[in-house]
Amino acid sequence: MSNSEILARLTEILEQRKAAEAGSSYVAGLYAKGLDAILKKIGEEATETVMAAKDVAASETSDNKGKLVYEVADLWFHTMVLLAQQGLSADDVLNELARRFGVSGLEEKAARKQKT
Amino acid sequence: MSNSEILARLTEILEQRKAAEAGSSYVAGLYAKGLDAILKKIGEEATETVMAAKDVAASETSDNKGKLVYEVADLWFHTMVLLAQQGLSADDVLNELARRFGVSGLEEKAARKQKT
Amino acid sequence: MSNSEILARLTEILEQRKAAEAGSSYVAGLYAKGLDAILKKIGEEATETVMAAKDVAASETSDNKGKLVYEVADLWFHTMVLLAQQGLSADDVLNELARRFGVSGLEEKAARKQKT
Amino acid sequence: MSNSEILARLTEILEQRKAAEAGSSYVAGLYAKGLDAILKKIGEEATETVMAAKDVAASETSDNKGKLVYEVADLWFHTMVLLAQQGLSADDVLNELARRFGVSGLEEKAARKQKT
Repeated sequence: MSNSEILARLTEILEQRKAAEAGSSYVAGLYAKGLDAILKKIGEEATETVMAAKDVAASETSDNKGKLVYEVADLWFHTMVLLAQQGLSADDVLNELARRFGVSGLEEKAARKQKT
Repeated sequence: MSNSEILARLTEILEQRKAAEAGSSYVAGLYAKGLDAILKKIGEEATETVMAAKDVAASETSDNKGKLVYEVADLWFHTMVLLAQQGLSADDVLNELARRFGVSGLEEKAARKQKT
Repeated sequence: MSNSEILARLTEILEQRKAAEAGSSYVAGLYAKGLDAILKKIGEEATETVMAAKDVAASETSDNKGKLVYEVADLWFHTMVLLAQQGLSADDVLNELARRFGVSGLEEKAARKQKT
Repeated sequence: MSNSEILARLTEILEQRKAAEAGSSYVAGLYAKGLDAILKKIGEEATETVMAAKDVAASETSDNKGKLVYEVADLWFHTMVLLAQQGLSADDVLNELARRFGVSGLEEKAARKQKT
């Protein structure tokens, strides 16, 4: 599967789960619990990403890099659940990132935001 | 630009910035400040994502949806800076998500993790 | 100053700052920026607390313990700004903690919340 | 119970739990799981504090203020578990806050930190 296929397939699955019963899957359960449950997971996964990155930095081996990738995947996944719940998708996020490229360069945009 | 091209192009830029001088761009500045500065941004952007989502939920209009996309884009962007700093990339994250699909289904994996 | 005097004095100062001009102090500036600016700081300081604790754990010396205390102080301070902005104070938080003690024991309460 | 008594009593309990068996209480269980479990809770409670504050802001009634106090109490409580696990206590945090007062004023200190 190519990268864009992965995000597209994941988006599709997240849409399908909206019609599923709460007990039928982890994501259907999250939708049923509602927005706060999803946001709580995002806070949790961001914290776990920070901890995993600190573990990588403290370690002399590369053993913890897989853990970092795992946590970032969890974070992206739960932001995609949030987007789906709000009628949005990874496409909107990628378009926003592309817009920052296209118009005036990604970094200039980011830098300008910093100054706000 | 297709979605996979956006992530590929962004990955490329983030790699190039590693060789750049700290003052030359926002990302080069973040690399120079080091890991903690990048992680602090991830904590910040996760918090802003949560706040933007609560604003969408509290609002009757769809005006805040753009803000939510903006904040998730910021969050993804800064996790990509973290990945690049650690010699990783969005590809590793997407492969991890694909692995969860391929083996036994994404949701089963997520559900199993929950029970741990 | 005793501990309860410290919290009382800090509460008093945070109240006084509400009437001050935005430019007159850091806290007056935070009030003027509004709720989201305060919440963003709370997310930031929580992340910095997590990072400082990981640094303590990774270090063989006790040099980082001061940093951890510093970050927790920042986190408590900004939650007190939030409480003041909402017409609440540290007293309300301490009463809530006392309530958990008095009724059925703090830990039982915490444990029960976990199961919810 | 006065405010300082509440923090002192809570500190005492958190110390006692260090010698307790993992299964005997919520806190003893957290200690047994280790630092990352405690830090994860801090990230979680910070996120819940942010969400509760947004709910207060979105609501016309004061019904949500109790929820906000509850979440800040949870956040303070789990930072106290962290402090205890590291051989520190609320006293260290309050002394740090007093130090900021005593030397050159709390806000000036905070303001100076901002500029760093």
